[in-house]
Amino acid sequence: MDKQQNIKPYVIGLDLGGTNSVFGIVDTRGNIKATTAIKTGGFDSAEAYVDACVKALEPVIEEVGGIGNINAMGIGAPNGNYLHGTIEYAPNLPWAHDGVVPLADMFKERLGVPVALTNDANAAAIGEMMYGVARGMNDFIVLTLGTGVGSGVVINGKLVYGSNGFAGELGHVATQRHEGRSCGCGRKDCLETYCSATGLARTARELLQSDARPSILRGLNPAEITSLDVSLAAGQGDALALEIYEQTGRMLGEVCADFAVFSAPEAFIFFGGMTKAGELLMKPIRESYLENVHPLFRDAKFLVSGLDGSTAAVLGASAVGWGIGK
Amino acid sequence: MDKQQNIKPYVIGLDLGGTNSVFGIVDTRGNIKATTAIKTGGFDSAEAYVDACVKALEPVIEEVGGIGNINAMGIGAPNGNYLHGTIEYAPNLPWAHDGVVPLADMFKERLGVPVALTNDANAAAIGEMMYGVARGMNDFIVLTLGTGVGSGVVINGKLVYGSNGFAGELGHVATQRHEGRSCGCGRKDCLETYCSATGLARTARELLQSDARPSILRGLNPAEITSLDVSLAAGQGDALALEIYEQTGRMLGEVCADFAVFSAPEAFIFFGGMTKAGELLMKPIRESYLENVHPLFRDAKFLVSGLDGSTAAVLGASAVGWGIGK
Repeated sequence: MDKQQNIKPYVIGLDLGGTNSVFGIVDTRGNIKATTAIKTGGFDSAEAYVDACVKALEPVIEEVGGIGNINAMGIGAPNGNYLHGTIEYAPNLPWAHDGVVPLADMFKERLGVPVALTNDANAAAIGEMMYGVARGMNDFIVLTLGTGVGSGVVINGKLVYGSNGFAGELGHVATQRHEGRSCGCGRKDCLETYCSATGLARTARELLQSDARPSILRGLNPAEITSLDVSLAAGQGDALALEIYEQTGRMLGEVCADFAVFSAPEAFIFFGGMTKAGELLMKPIRESYLENVHPLFRDAKFLVSGLDGSTAAVLGASAVGWGIGK
Repeated sequence: MDKQQNIKPYVIGLDLGGTNSVFGIVDTRGNIKATTAIKTGGFDSAEAYVDACVKALEPVIEEVGGIGNINAMGIGAPNGNYLHGTIEYAPNLPWAHDGVVPLADMFKERLGVPVALTNDANAAAIGEMMYGVARGMNDFIVLTLGTGVGSGVVINGKLVYGSNGFAGELGHVATQRHEGRSCGCGRKDCLETYCSATGLARTARELLQSDARPSILRGLNPAEITSLDVSLAAGQGDALALEIYEQTGRMLGEVCADFAVFSAPEAFIFFGGMTKAGELLMKPIRESYLENVHPLFRDAKFLVSGLDGSTAAVLGASAVGWGIGK
């Protein structure tokens, strides 16, 4: 505890999402003391984005007594590379989609504090380890089910970064061979083409064509169907919507059975908007896992994050700032 | 270097295979000072097996100056669990196929030295890290292609054991969905049902039925075709035999593309009898990897172990005895 007196009391956590950039000033116990946010898009350069961030941060930094009280900054960002502190070719960020942005260094230069940056799903995993359902676990896998499928793999209490800083991209394993859904990464049949919110909506559109059963979903414009629509229909017992969740969950269970033989995790933790469907999704995941997994790995737990989405991401990012997850 | 004076100069390495148990007395630099071996089978209990081992070991231990010069023992064994020092339900070991054998403790009791035990593929990975092509690498995956497919996953310079000690069973990922080759583990379409020596022979039998092309292999009794026969035929330019290697290699490349997104290894290292086929196998692996992998992971190297098979396994086991790979 002696050492703690030399550590400044707060870190800045930044959850850098495709739409919003949410900041929190967080203490060592994970209390969020102040927050602010800006829109992530609408900037034509990374410099302009960082300018806007710093401007938004100034008043909240003052709220906690000024930059002298800030120990560090932690960032969770799509395509974030922890080893280099960069965002690399992030398809959804207009100011980072075709190059390598040294975002950690840019914030460090502007704020004068150390800055650590990691992939957004890794930040979520660190958030779960510090403040969520993964407390006390050394080996677990977080799968973030949102617009895409992200993941953070923790082995021996540490995030796996691999030889190039990009390990843990489980949204890009092939769920089947030689079938045909194209993925944004240029490959076919990546997990996220099926089991993200967009993938689930795509399954809905396909099933509405191939399955003749009546469905509430037939009243909607197929091009505009979202995972929320499917979830609402399933909640009303719509057979087709239930089938969509069944297929999506079963596929997740199958890939988790493959992930299990790799790192023998104690738990799979699901995070993100799609988990709001609860048992609609979790039941087929568990069932299909048990049908497909090697007998040595039957005991893995299947958990849903108990943390509020944006709070968890900010806390995870702040934990990276505290030097957790190295 | 001061510390070294307190360490006794040798460890016993045991490569415990389905057929042979090979022992080596190894120094800190990986020099094998003395060796012996016994047949693994033919014992009706683990106690009888350990008795025979100790009896065989006595003269070689004397050769290096007696048990007082032995620092520890390291064992690499099928279905070996590092966390518990046990062999668990190993299908190919008559004295360990239906239960949990505390082999590390049994040797410790008999020899009076510390004993560490790990999975045979993990021992191979440690051997590669200490004495082979993985020297200096922190992140790599060893795939052992023999009767089955084993694996050792190294992340951040450490073997991955996972929550239950059985991590890194990559021979049991599903290579495809809902097709149909049964695996010894009770599941279907595990990698090792296709890409082990036995899997390759099975592919040969299937292809001889489904493909009408002439082949040297048609002169053999289909039930007795081995991977060696296929390799010899391929060496003579037999089109069907070449196709068998092409299919096997392509499947390995596809699964490596999935493994890459998990741990972003610097290299995949292939080990075991099947690698004697050389480029027949490695070329389709590399080609299919590059066709299937996410762009972030294209730089992974594909290497063949340069270590002699049984030597590598004994050295890997001995390294476990030196406390490496924890």
